Amino acid sequence: MLLPGMNRPLKIFSGQSNPDLAREITDHLGIPLGRSTTQKFANDNLFVRFEESLREADVFIIQSLTAPVHDHLMELLMMIDAAKGASAHRVTAVIPYFSYARSNKKDEPRISITARLVADLLQTAGADRVLTMTLHSPQVHGFFKIPMDHLSAETVIANHFATQIDDLENAVVVAPDAGDIKRASHLARRLRLPLAFIDKQRISDTEVEARGLVGDVKNKIALIIDDEVSTAGSLIKAVDTLLAAGAREVYAAVTHGVYVGPALERIQRSPIKAVAATNTCRPPTPLPEKLQVMTVAPLFAEAIYRIHQGESVSELFT
Amino acid sequence: MLLPGMNRPLKIFSGQSNPDLAREITDHLGIPLGRSTTQKFANDNLFVRFEESLREADVFIIQSLTAPVHDHLMELLMMIDAAKGASAHRVTAVIPYFSYARSNKKDEPRISITARLVADLLQTAGADRVLTMTLHSPQVHGFFKIPMDHLSAETVIANHFATQIDDLENAVVVAPDAGDIKRASHLARRLRLPLAFIDKQRISDTEVEARGLVGDVKNKIALIIDDEVSTAGSLIKAVDTLLAAGAREVYAAVTHGVYVGPALERIQRSPIKAVAATNTCRPPTPLPEKLQVMTVAPLFAEAIYRIHQGESVSELFT
Amino acid sequence: MLLPGMNRPLKIFSGQSNPDLAREITDHLGIPLGRSTTQKFANDNLFVRFEESLREADVFIIQSLTAPVHDHLMELLMMIDAAKGASAHRVTAVIPYFSYARSNKKDEPRISITARLVADLLQTAGADRVLTMTLHSPQVHGFFKIPMDHLSAETVIANHFATQIDDLENAVVVAPDAGDIKRASHLARRLRLPLAFIDKQRISDTEVEARGLVGDVKNKIALIIDDEVSTAGSLIKAVDTLLAAGAREVYAAVTHGVYVGPALERIQRSPIKAVAATNTCRPPTPLPEKLQVMTVAPLFAEAIYRIHQGESVSELFT
Amino acid sequence: MLLPGMNRPLKIFSGQSNPDLAREITDHLGIPLGRSTTQKFANDNLFVRFEESLREADVFIIQSLTAPVHDHLMELLMMIDAAKGASAHRVTAVIPYFSYARSNKKDEPRISITARLVADLLQTAGADRVLTMTLHSPQVHGFFKIPMDHLSAETVIANHFATQIDDLENAVVVAPDAGDIKRASHLARRLRLPLAFIDKQRISDTEVEARGLVGDVKNKIALIIDDEVSTAGSLIKAVDTLLAAGAREVYAAVTHGVYVGPALERIQRSPIKAVAATNTCRPPTPLPEKLQVMTVAPLFAEAIYRIHQGESVSELFT
Amino acid sequence: MLLPGMNRPLKIFSGQSNPDLAREITDHLGIPLGRSTTQKFANDNLFVRFEESLREADVFIIQSLTAPVHDHLMELLMMIDAAKGASAHRVTAVIPYFSYARSNKKDEPRISITARLVADLLQTAGADRVLTMTLHSPQVHGFFKIPMDHLSAETVIANHFATQIDDLENAVVVAPDAGDIKRASHLARRLRLPLAFIDKQRISDTEVEARGLVGDVKNKIALIIDDEVSTAGSLIKAVDTLLAAGAREVYAAVTHGVYVGPALERIQRSPIKAVAATNTCRPPTPLPEKLQVMTVAPLFAEAIYRIHQGESVSELFT
Amino acid sequence: MLLPGMNRPLKIFSGQSNPDLAREITDHLGIPLGRSTTQKFANDNLFVRFEESLREADVFIIQSLTAPVHDHLMELLMMIDAAKGASAHRVTAVIPYFSYARSNKKDEPRISITARLVADLLQTAGADRVLTMTLHSPQVHGFFKIPMDHLSAETVIANHFATQIDDLENAVVVAPDAGDIKRASHLARRLRLPLAFIDKQRISDTEVEARGLVGDVKNKIALIIDDEVSTAGSLIKAVDTLLAAGAREVYAAVTHGVYVGPALERIQRSPIKAVAATNTCRPPTPLPEKLQVMTVAPLFAEAIYRIHQGESVSELFT
Repeated sequence: MLLPGMNRPLKIFSGQSNPDLAREITDHLGIPLGRSTTQKFANDNLFVRFEESLREADVFIIQSLTAPVHDHLMELLMMIDAAKGASAHRVTAVIPYFSYARSNKKDEPRISITARLVADLLQTAGADRVLTMTLHSPQVHGFFKIPMDHLSAETVIANHFATQIDDLENAVVVAPDAGDIKRASHLARRLRLPLAFIDKQRISDTEVEARGLVGDVKNKIALIIDDEVSTAGSLIKAVDTLLAAGAREVYAAVTHGVYVGPALERIQRSPIKAVAATNTCRPPTPLPEKLQVMTVAPLFAEAIYRIHQGESVSELFT
Repeated sequence: MLLPGMNRPLKIFSGQSNPDLAREITDHLGIPLGRSTTQKFANDNLFVRFEESLREADVFIIQSLTAPVHDHLMELLMMIDAAKGASAHRVTAVIPYFSYARSNKKDEPRISITARLVADLLQTAGADRVLTMTLHSPQVHGFFKIPMDHLSAETVIANHFATQIDDLENAVVVAPDAGDIKRASHLARRLRLPLAFIDKQRISDTEVEARGLVGDVKNKIALIIDDEVSTAGSLIKAVDTLLAAGAREVYAAVTHGVYVGPALERIQRSPIKAVAATNTCRPPTPLPEKLQVMTVAPLFAEAIYRIHQGESVSELFT
Repeated sequence: MLLPGMNRPLKIFSGQSNPDLAREITDHLGIPLGRSTTQKFANDNLFVRFEESLREADVFIIQSLTAPVHDHLMELLMMIDAAKGASAHRVTAVIPYFSYARSNKKDEPRISITARLVADLLQTAGADRVLTMTLHSPQVHGFFKIPMDHLSAETVIANHFATQIDDLENAVVVAPDAGDIKRASHLARRLRLPLAFIDKQRISDTEVEARGLVGDVKNKIALIIDDEVSTAGSLIKAVDTLLAAGAREVYAAVTHGVYVGPALERIQRSPIKAVAATNTCRPPTPLPEKLQVMTVAPLFAEAIYRIHQGESVSELFT
Repeated sequence: MLLPGMNRPLKIFSGQSNPDLAREITDHLGIPLGRSTTQKFANDNLFVRFEESLREADVFIIQSLTAPVHDHLMELLMMIDAAKGASAHRVTAVIPYFSYARSNKKDEPRISITARLVADLLQTAGADRVLTMTLHSPQVHGFFKIPMDHLSAETVIANHFATQIDDLENAVVVAPDAGDIKRASHLARRLRLPLAFIDKQRISDTEVEARGLVGDVKNKIALIIDDEVSTAGSLIKAVDTLLAAGAREVYAAVTHGVYVGPALERIQRSPIKAVAATNTCRPPTPLPEKLQVMTVAPLFAEAIYRIHQGESVSELFT
Repeated sequence: MLLPGMNRPLKIFSGQSNPDLAREITDHLGIPLGRSTTQKFANDNLFVRFEESLREADVFIIQSLTAPVHDHLMELLMMIDAAKGASAHRVTAVIPYFSYARSNKKDEPRISITARLVADLLQTAGADRVLTMTLHSPQVHGFFKIPMDHLSAETVIANHFATQIDDLENAVVVAPDAGDIKRASHLARRLRLPLAFIDKQRISDTEVEARGLVGDVKNKIALIIDDEVSTAGSLIKAVDTLLAAGAREVYAAVTHGVYVGPALERIQRSPIKAVAATNTCRPPTPLPEKLQVMTVAPLFAEAIYRIHQGESVSELFT
Repeated sequence: MLLPGMNRPLKIFSGQSNPDLAREITDHLGIPLGRSTTQKFANDNLFVRFEESLREADVFIIQSLTAPVHDHLMELLMMIDAAKGASAHRVTAVIPYFSYARSNKKDEPRISITARLVADLLQTAGADRVLTMTLHSPQVHGFFKIPMDHLSAETVIANHFATQIDDLENAVVVAPDAGDIKRASHLARRLRLPLAFIDKQRISDTEVEARGLVGDVKNKIALIIDDEVSTAGSLIKAVDTLLAAGAREVYAAVTHGVYVGPALERIQRSPIKAVAATNTCRPPTPLPEKLQVMTVAPLFAEAIYRIHQGESVSELFT
């Protein structure tokens, strides 16, 4: 049977936030990265222009919402808008790192559920679908009315640990927060390792700072897994907790290496052995000694290919 | 300053799911419950008609999404639609129990995020705002584009325990699942009690059924708190775990007493002392011995009054 | 010329209301019925999941809105929502029996025009088009903004009478209500038979119950035709009227055999010879003696094929 | 209780189709007709401007969709658009005669359901509600998502006959078509008169032109009632039928006196005694001898007042 | 690579405003003009019907918004609506002359920005895209959310002058208003001619009528270029100004020959040599002596072909 | 008559871009500036929270789109979203400087009409109306479907010159570009001064850089008026042109003092006497010697008051 995408050219463009990832993705697919121009005028206004026809094309625009977040968001919205105005058949916003995903509920009065707002803005600009990875809360999926494919870095992280940690059978997967247990548990099962997690919950009013460690890490290699490392504050505290509990060594692997503020310095000073993050966010250059990069380009390339061809994306993970 | 609501009549109507609660709310407000008719024809079609003018009125329609869920949902949608068509100024869907809130993410491929779908249906029917209580996941708030007020039964539950439990200083608040710790922790702080929780997470592949208890319950009165009791399965297991850990007595208080399937029988047979639920769902009649009802009618009445008058609802909780 | 549908897989799924019809349709098309799961949880919530990829497929979901109407409606809405979220290219709601079509105007104040509401709900869930049969009022078509194909069972009914009634030249087509004359007149012309109708209109204030019979039925075989038989109340009265007017025998053929409440018992007890209905609604099992089933599966199969292939559906009827 | 409308100025404007009716309405309400300008440029483009502030006002724009229909429709759309852009609080399109109401279904393939299209256009321009009279099909109500008040001329017509026909006890109300029986039956009951109707249905294939008269008109004064008279073709035929059946005299009263093409000439030449129509359409000037005008201005004035004040409009008719 | 349009039939239909242009376009493309019927009923209502299937077709409907503007607009809206309802895959409104484009801002209070309103109406009716030529203001493009292709008659006009004017090297391109300089400047560059323009701006309060001529026209052939000629008032004044300034001869070429009111008479009486306009508006018949017609049919044909095939339209102009 | 706004509290909040203007506006109105918090997290995400109830209030949010433009835009969108979610009755986005207004057409293929995009984003976030000043193109008004009030700084600028220029009768108003003549002409009439303008149009291909001066400035005080000064490039060139043509002195007054890049330095070095700009954009501090600030706070205060009270805003200017 003829596949539906075969009739339409596949065109992939990149915003300014992570062009290296975009190029790696197009290299995997064996097609050139689409030509487009983004300028910033003296008055801080952006200007975007596609330098090739995308009429009736199946267009993917790759942009991570890293800092400067709002410049990158606006560039993405303008590219979507321009692509639709230029008669693209379908525009998929590929957002490897969707930064407002933590703003997903109203735990205080009179605030914005910004993840929903950003979802609405993307749809207003004209996005037909979204491809993203490891949203902080899976409920953010429901903020979109358009179809979304939500990738996971689990296989990439599993491969990373499997190849990097020599004595893997003595390792334990650690969730740094009770809320992350689900993701950690999946990974543990895949690696056939035990699971531990750090419980930050207050048990009584006087034990505000108490933090328990559930599970056994003694003499083990602790493999912390998390969705993102931002200021690295809780990561560093988790390392201390694990070492105090007798862990032999501590490694971490996260999907999104946001690394803001004191993050890099904290990691370098910490007794952690290494922190690996995928390239959903552009890695710092030069790469500090303890940092490692896991590429998700093949995963995104495969997902884009399948979306274009009308093949199942969920099968990609099973 | 003249309050905005003062110009418009306040009218409260009830669907078929919980008319007792509706009447209790209107009694609190000192106004009659609005007259409306709902019929079910032989062909299973519903018919609704308002029996009084609601032109330019500030209309509230009270309907919990209890079983039969879809009859109640359709009745609510039809009442909203009829109210808008009859020139109501504003229609607030008051949904004390919003039953599809657990269907809030896509943890399997090719399923419906039904909480988002229901939110969309309510908005399509014409709802201008929503008033609800204790959504299973707070993120469901973001599924609505219209304003929502999200009440909590915490004060009601706190009062219940404070008046029902004699030896309260020896009690401990228990979250039956790590995911519920936040709500339990709030309540514990309000009652100045310690907190414990039951950890259902798998620690290793071989310990699938292991369930730990974090916190000390020995010789204490365990006060389980949860958002809803449905089949009572996990509630009963939690009771066993707590008693095995040395708890003196176990009580439970939940917001939504859904009580489906074997729930009532399980509770009666269990060593639990009592299960209290609010009346967001219509309580079983006659009320089984171990069941207690906490009324949220005053809370809903106050919230409706404040929404009508344009006063802060969040202040209600602080 | 290449046909547009040829590029996209055709996938047909069924809700719970009439899976036999769905299977008969897919058998006609020579394709397997799509695999999907519908569960009802203890709390009366539905859960639906497609068990095969429908990415970029041309999806048809077959569901009649028979009792329990609102469970079937919700299942249909959830299937549409899940199909769109799973990247179906196009979703056609195939609703052989659209039950709220009588609720199409506001003949009383403060009621819902529910047929419009249902149309809006289907569009909100994501339906791209609708395929249905014999709406009670043709104006309901205009409640949909999306394209609709509106099939007629006339050919099926004509064939039924042509093959079942031996002495067809002595028959007369009867509309049981002045409002149905148009449909009856079409059929009469097709069968080259005369037409009669029963006039239920009040002629004066004192003759409220008077019902006239317009047209000659004496010694004839009366063939009643109607859009649906529900409680069979007016059908039975029409039979009496016709026999009283000298009709030799009475038969009936209707599109939708809803058969609710006392319908089956009334029919069995009545002097009517037989009632034939299509299978838009699942026929009762076992089939009572006087009931006959006319299948519309070939008609729906052909219509789905033509919609999929981009061929004219109206040509199907001319 | 303060009425909601009291805070907002009531402003009524008129398009070009029926300014006399608009002025009569504002005279009844004791307020001046709002000042606005409509110009037609040399290039056939319209230009509309409100000559007074309507900021936060409750605006009603009166326009019948009489010929030139599309100029009048466009003027109405532009006035609605301009009123919303000028910050009117609410804009009600008052359409005494809604001319596309007959185009309400798809009885041929590939046509427009234009009544739905016009409904959509009005909502797109910004209409918040609609006030109209005697739609050809009541289902057209469901084509609007915004609230609509649907007035009836029945009381006006009943008063007309009651005061104009001396020997009213010997009259009979006649529906000129089986489809109009419902309206005629209401009027007959109100006037305590018997009912008759003309049946244009084909009884057999050879009797195409046969038209029966159901009910007794012999020696009676026949009072034909219809929703509109357009070319007067079927009206004239009905007169002949009634006189042939022995009616003493024939009068007609219709809601909408559209009078197009040969209508006026036909009426003058016919043996009908008089044709009365309301002024929803601007009456011909000078008024031909047999024509009479019944004013609906008081009815529209009262309805506008009640909409403005938030009082029940349906009570107006009971 | 297979082109996307190749799978779908291309169908072109024409409204009543300019069928000659439509036929010329389809002749260029070598396909028959689609069959459709438009009728005007006695009550001034329009009726449109497509006489061939356009299911899944790529449909273009050609209609210029010339007088009677609102009949033509309504016909276009009804054709779009009927095409969408008949399951056209895509409907492109081809509007060679978009007449409300001058109504694009709010330079007086309480008026309609009618170009935006018309854009909204077209989208409400279901237009998927728009193809037009030389909008009076390019900002009108932004009034549409759907993709638009905006053609220019520049090449056609350039060819016209190049072939019609013998002594072209002694010509000068003249903009009759400072606001039109951009278009005139493009043309001048293409023809390698100097540019002049007429400045109608008021310099002081006493010099209201002063009009300067910027640029040298002495002894030159003045080639006036404008977007449209309507009443021909400013065109005639420009001719006088140019001749007074010593121009040898004056010619004019405009995109849209609207020719309303006294236009034709004024042109005939004026010393202008000739006025050429394209056939976006149907030329007067018989064509007055001084008028010339430049066809844009090949341009529209090529644009439609490229839109259908998914090829770049902007390349058409570079 | 009671004014509509009187029932609802008026609340004015400020984003981070120009809080001084916001405070000056609220001081004029004699009400406190609403309390709100905006934070920027380490990950560059914004967080906004209103610190007081705005339920049912008439909310105005003041934010100029100055650099960093996208941070300010996102803050505005989040504040609008939060205000709507917090049940504000009406939210007016007050955007004294709307920076993307130049991006209003598609003069190149495959670009974004960003002014339309920004208009759509504001409406998606929930803005009910917009109040702005001196849009670069008045057509941008039509990009908004919601009501907009478009203020002009003309009176402020006229007052400025009237009080600052001693020898005003010897002055001439100068438009630095033919496109700005309309605004300059208004001002000239108000000040009863003559008008001149600088014509930057290319006359022939070889005279690309030629710029003419239309009007007499010899020995006069030239008063340049423009909508904004950004890099000051064309302003400086206009000064040179005017002095070369014999102007005695040159002053400038602009609505929006954006002053980006080399603007301040250029102005200081230029022979211009002074440049006055309003405070729609926050003025540089300390204010350079040649710069002057004209406040528009009273104008915005009056407009907000009138919008709140339902009084005509256009009357403000006549």
